Amino acid sequence: MNEYIYKCFDCNKTYGKDEVEKNLLYLCSTCGKVEKNQPLKGILLVEYDYDSIKKKISLESFFNYELGKFWQYSFLFPLDKSKLDSIPDKLAKITLPSNCVQKLNYEGRNFFVLNETCNPTLSFKDRASSLVALKAIEMGITKIAAASTGNAGSSLAGICARLGLESVIFVPKNIPEAKRIQIQSYGAELILVDGDYDLAFDTCIEISSQKNWYIRNTAYNPLTIEGKKSAAYDIFISTKGKMPDVVFIPTGDGVILSGFYKGLAELKKLGLIEKLPKLISVQAEGSDCFARFYIANVFEYKSANSIADSICAGAPRALYYGAEAIEKTNGSVIVVSDEEIIEAQKITAKQFGMLLEPSSAASFAAYKKFIKLNENQNETYLLLFTGNGLKDISSLSIWNDPVVPLTPSQIKDKFF
Amino acid sequence: MNEYIYKCFDCNKTYGKDEVEKNLLYLCSTCGKVEKNQPLKGILLVEYDYDSIKKKISLESFFNYELGKFWQYSFLFPLDKSKLDSIPDKLAKITLPSNCVQKLNYEGRNFFVLNETCNPTLSFKDRASSLVALKAIEMGITKIAAASTGNAGSSLAGICARLGLESVIFVPKNIPEAKRIQIQSYGAELILVDGDYDLAFDTCIEISSQKNWYIRNTAYNPLTIEGKKSAAYDIFISTKGKMPDVVFIPTGDGVILSGFYKGLAELKKLGLIEKLPKLISVQAEGSDCFARFYIANVFEYKSANSIADSICAGAPRALYYGAEAIEKTNGSVIVVSDEEIIEAQKITAKQFGMLLEPSSAASFAAYKKFIKLNENQNETYLLLFTGNGLKDISSLSIWNDPVVPLTPSQIKDKFF
Repeated sequence: MNEYIYKCFDCNKTYGKDEVEKNLLYLCSTCGKVEKNQPLKGILLVEYDYDSIKKKISLESFFNYELGKFWQYSFLFPLDKSKLDSIPDKLAKITLPSNCVQKLNYEGRNFFVLNETCNPTLSFKDRASSLVALKAIEMGITKIAAASTGNAGSSLAGICARLGLESVIFVPKNIPEAKRIQIQSYGAELILVDGDYDLAFDTCIEISSQKNWYIRNTAYNPLTIEGKKSAAYDIFISTKGKMPDVVFIPTGDGVILSGFYKGLAELKKLGLIEKLPKLISVQAEGSDCFARFYIANVFEYKSANSIADSICAGAPRALYYGAEAIEKTNGSVIVVSDEEIIEAQKITAKQFGMLLEPSSAASFAAYKKFIKLNENQNETYLLLFTGNGLKDISSLSIWNDPVVPLTPSQIKDKFF
Repeated sequence: MNEYIYKCFDCNKTYGKDEVEKNLLYLCSTCGKVEKNQPLKGILLVEYDYDSIKKKISLESFFNYELGKFWQYSFLFPLDKSKLDSIPDKLAKITLPSNCVQKLNYEGRNFFVLNETCNPTLSFKDRASSLVALKAIEMGITKIAAASTGNAGSSLAGICARLGLESVIFVPKNIPEAKRIQIQSYGAELILVDGDYDLAFDTCIEISSQKNWYIRNTAYNPLTIEGKKSAAYDIFISTKGKMPDVVFIPTGDGVILSGFYKGLAELKKLGLIEKLPKLISVQAEGSDCFARFYIANVFEYKSANSIADSICAGAPRALYYGAEAIEKTNGSVIVVSDEEIIEAQKITAKQFGMLLEPSSAASFAAYKKFIKLNENQNETYLLLFTGNGLKDISSLSIWNDPVVPLTPSQIKDKFF
């Protein structure tokens, strides 16, 4: 059994694991708060006995992990390894592609991407959904609920179907049709909430708490950050320890940013890396809460709107921890417009053969902007590509006009 | 350099590799024919010096290949390995997921799937597109053309974008919007032919031949069958040589069926397997040419129509070689209705968490039908899942009705 505790990010109060897990506690019981249009207060972070883990592992043992089988890091997850070992068939079903880190080249310069667009449900969110689902299996819970704007919900629904669990997904009423169909197809119970994502978030927590369903709401469940941190380990292994200098992370609620930072900080605590890469939070112009907080250190709610719906968040749930990730890594925030996102979506499709949803294309838009201003030939860059473009065909249709049919003789005229 | 020749499937005439490759010959110069509403005549098959390869390889050496890096079988491809070795970055971009073979369970019975739904462009066709594209690079050709109903075209367009090649895709005018957008997004030149797939096929060949573009048309280019055969090798490695007894293959033009059979026959020639699995061709009721040919041994054109658009072919281009695959493996043909396909799409989504396009769901529909009639507890089964359901959201929307939005108090009433 792993030794770990939970610790409140805001007030540092600590909790034994049973206290949290047996009572299905999510936020700090002292300062935790879910408030409308506010970031979460009292997020719980999992803390391990890093000194003892450090003695047991080595660089070589870490490099021996098989990429894609992220549960192998079980000593750095709040999981009971012996229970994992009893479900090999289930684990096989949630394996991620092993070629997650890829080298690309743009205008003569190499950079790396963490490509999560071919995951089981085609998005990064599978890392969090899978870890939450494994924990549910360990705890003997068979039903998991989540509030979602679409992607987290379709991920949880798909992962639950793979693992034989039930899911209930609360979504705002304006959810895009394709995402609704995805969630339903996987067999989830879909609850269309007559309101926005905030109302879906609160309603999900209220109903699920009374029903004793396990709740996957992002940032609210500590295992969402834990699941996402595995990306940092995967990059460490893929690059044989040569971590990139700068990492670009699409940011809405800030949970990928938070998780990635936690993973990096743990690699440092374990003596595996010396320095953390700079984390660049990538935001859309219409959803720039992290950017405003970075400048003024004050949170102000502003309703969010962008073509990159997956990173739209007027009140990022993991704002405070995400902001620490930026600050402690000497990172920053880059804001890109919807036009820049579409331009990036074009380049990534045409030059790299990767269809990205707008939030992922935003990474590339930010990278382009960054290297224009901060050209440093000695720095290495990594971009997170978090979701497949086929999850949002409507964004691709903006820049791909219908074509006029031609007869064979018209086609000959065209070419000769 | 590999030693290989090309041999006509129909008249057995043989060709040296230069004769075929330097002249961009596709079909047999003696009996080859592309005729409207007819299967192709004179398909060329690549033949290797199997005796000499047999001496060089062993079971152990074969098992050492890394799954996903299908070009490692270069000694069984018409490729120049030394040229491959010089493009490692390009090869990394076309790597397939390594967890291609997965074990699933339905009604208490295990079976295997070859899951190709998370390939680079989310379909099996990437195997053929990639091999054709690697050959183009080897030959110094920078532009590849293909006729397609949608999937082969989007695959070729995506793979070409990854490898820095240009593509021209000829499609019939009634192509579904999402597939059109995919092809365009990857930067292919899209030619909408004012007619059906047959006209697109012929027009593509006519224009491309004059332009000296390399042609990827399925079955017409011998490397489409070669690329698809790699699936048989991957299964051999994944199962550590314990090949399934029966394999279910969605069949339209019959090229996956043909390729899979050729791969199996080669494994046998190399002494790696003793017996070929039975190959079951899976057809849709509205596109059942193989089924009719299997019974009457006569080809008759019938215009094809089914929800499973990827396996619609009124005149399967690889009919005769595909029919041999069925006959020589003691296989058969199973025909499934659109209703059975939709039912299978539901089960695979809800129980296995896999969104499949209808042609892939057809595999499962046929498997269900088969085990009902041929229950044999000692036989092992493998199904090909060839395309992701997100490539065809409209088929999923048939069985997922919109949901009525509820207020929080209505939601409480619902659950308590």
